[in-house]
Amino acid sequence: MSNHYVKYEELYRFIFDCLSKVGVCADSATSVAEGLASTSLFGIDSHGVKLLPHYVRAAKNGRINLNPKCELNLKSHCAGVLDADHAFGHYSGTVAMNKAMELAKEFGVGAVSVANSSHFGAAGFFAIKAAYQDMIGLSFTHADSLMLSANGKRPFFGTNPISFCAPVEGEGPFYLDMATTTISWNQVMISASQDQNLQEGWAVDENGDAVIDPKLARALNPIGGYKGFGLSMMIEILCSLLTEMPFGQNISSMYKTPITEHRHLGHFFMAINISAFTEVSDFKKRLKAMMDEIRQEPPKGNAPVMCPGDPQKLHKKKRSEQGIPVLDVTWKEFEGLAKDLHVPLPTAKRG
Amino acid sequence: MSNHYVKYEELYRFIFDCLSKVGVCADSATSVAEGLASTSLFGIDSHGVKLLPHYVRAAKNGRINLNPKCELNLKSHCAGVLDADHAFGHYSGTVAMNKAMELAKEFGVGAVSVANSSHFGAAGFFAIKAAYQDMIGLSFTHADSLMLSANGKRPFFGTNPISFCAPVEGEGPFYLDMATTTISWNQVMISASQDQNLQEGWAVDENGDAVIDPKLARALNPIGGYKGFGLSMMIEILCSLLTEMPFGQNISSMYKTPITEHRHLGHFFMAINISAFTEVSDFKKRLKAMMDEIRQEPPKGNAPVMCPGDPQKLHKKKRSEQGIPVLDVTWKEFEGLAKDLHVPLPTAKRG
Repeated sequence: MSNHYVKYEELYRFIFDCLSKVGVCADSATSVAEGLASTSLFGIDSHGVKLLPHYVRAAKNGRINLNPKCELNLKSHCAGVLDADHAFGHYSGTVAMNKAMELAKEFGVGAVSVANSSHFGAAGFFAIKAAYQDMIGLSFTHADSLMLSANGKRPFFGTNPISFCAPVEGEGPFYLDMATTTISWNQVMISASQDQNLQEGWAVDENGDAVIDPKLARALNPIGGYKGFGLSMMIEILCSLLTEMPFGQNISSMYKTPITEHRHLGHFFMAINISAFTEVSDFKKRLKAMMDEIRQEPPKGNAPVMCPGDPQKLHKKKRSEQGIPVLDVTWKEFEGLAKDLHVPLPTAKRG
Repeated sequence: MSNHYVKYEELYRFIFDCLSKVGVCADSATSVAEGLASTSLFGIDSHGVKLLPHYVRAAKNGRINLNPKCELNLKSHCAGVLDADHAFGHYSGTVAMNKAMELAKEFGVGAVSVANSSHFGAAGFFAIKAAYQDMIGLSFTHADSLMLSANGKRPFFGTNPISFCAPVEGEGPFYLDMATTTISWNQVMISASQDQNLQEGWAVDENGDAVIDPKLARALNPIGGYKGFGLSMMIEILCSLLTEMPFGQNISSMYKTPITEHRHLGHFFMAINISAFTEVSDFKKRLKAMMDEIRQEPPKGNAPVMCPGDPQKLHKKKRSEQGIPVLDVTWKEFEGLAKDLHVPLPTAKRG
């Protein structure tokens, strides 16, 4: 299996150009380009540039509003709902998190839920924006049914992820971004495409029985059984009920729902102003000390003890130097997009 | 093994009287009595009335300030730090959550971290207070090192729990209260006292190797491996860094640290005003519908699919009628307290 290695800036440009060519407004195209390319730079390939062909289809076929008019309804000082008007999730999430940060600066905390949105990629893309501004950021989304219910035989909630980011002295932010299932569904699809088995305990088939063949997987186990199920329900409450969006088995599917239909997804974003509690510089120094202590913990085997986000930081360093690997299967799709849309392919090195 | 069955009101009265007799102020004694008795009523015996003898020792020996002067430092409109002056955690948490709710009513969200506190019992005791007032409540605490670090051989973070509660139409609040470890440490101690083995995957010994003998357990596995470890670190950041309290291996132990010493624990509470986002009555109806849909999901085996908090609701119903079971070992300690402090024992039925 060979890859093409592409610089972040080249992928960003290619994504922006492809989306612009199908009529996506510049603000939306910028958010998606930044979101997908930075997620791939972090090594999270399941939520990165491989999604571009799907996103172009979504833009061309009516799922996405190319020129959304997002509308904020603030019913209180520091919290409210953003109606995203069926924008790309990367864009609506960016608008919402920016507003949450603005509110947090003024009031101490800002919380914005988002209605009528679509797939937003990696949750961490939004939470880290707050950390870059020396605040704590939280980001949540619901998703279509894929998590096996505790004691059940089929899924009700989605892989509903949580992201939490915070600023650190002398290095990139603390970065936690995790599905509440054992793995993400995109990882199942990647395993299926590469004919690799799943690990035991990750997935179940249509009868709720354990399965390792990714092609037979119909649902993913929650982390910690009923505990992960409970966390997923917490996220569903924030993203579905504070937004008046559908929940559970009524949430449309990314791939199975006709691409002509809006998805009506909900998200929830929060920014916490650290300076409302303590000195920001002290907070960042102490978080750095905490992270360094963790990294010096004695390992059980060969793998070191790491902090959440450490693998992503290593990927970012390596991929900033060597380029982001794009699988052949994705590169072929990029070639199709380049030809159809008359957009120059990204400059790439074979490896 | 036989039990004494005691009504909630009798346990509440006994706890309040015992603490009052050792000099605890009425506000603190009320919070602890309500907290321990209601937690036992919910069936969470590991964090309920069995802790009373320890709490009396903590009050008598200087760990707890009997007449704390809690001080709120609000550096912003809706967020700030409460210095708990070494109060019982149940009291400082009650003061902080009440303040968070007050702020949420005015601003949309309220967030209060607590410094210089002590063990606060079950996290859900505070979060549910917000749900009783038609708000969403969140409650977190850090704790001493007991969670095996991902890839490590010993613990760094504690069992750091998260609680999330929300109001529901026609029944008690949605109630999620979970340690980020597979089980709580109090459950290990209960298993050890009853000579029962732990389940595989729950605990490790002093070398970080899997163990089922509770007497050999030195650390608990996080839920979902590195994911639970990440959630625990998120909670540590909120509870240690926003409060300027110790973190990780520097947090004192509930039982091993001399009972004469303050514990310097930190907590974090948040209230979210639902009406800042949507109609409260609609929210409650839709959450009820979500919960009923979940309960009707097809089960895999004999156990039904339940919502978080459903087991607690069943316990509350049963124990409200039949009384709260108090183990003989705890009852003997109650007899000692009654004798030493000249407090009447709770009225009880043997069963």
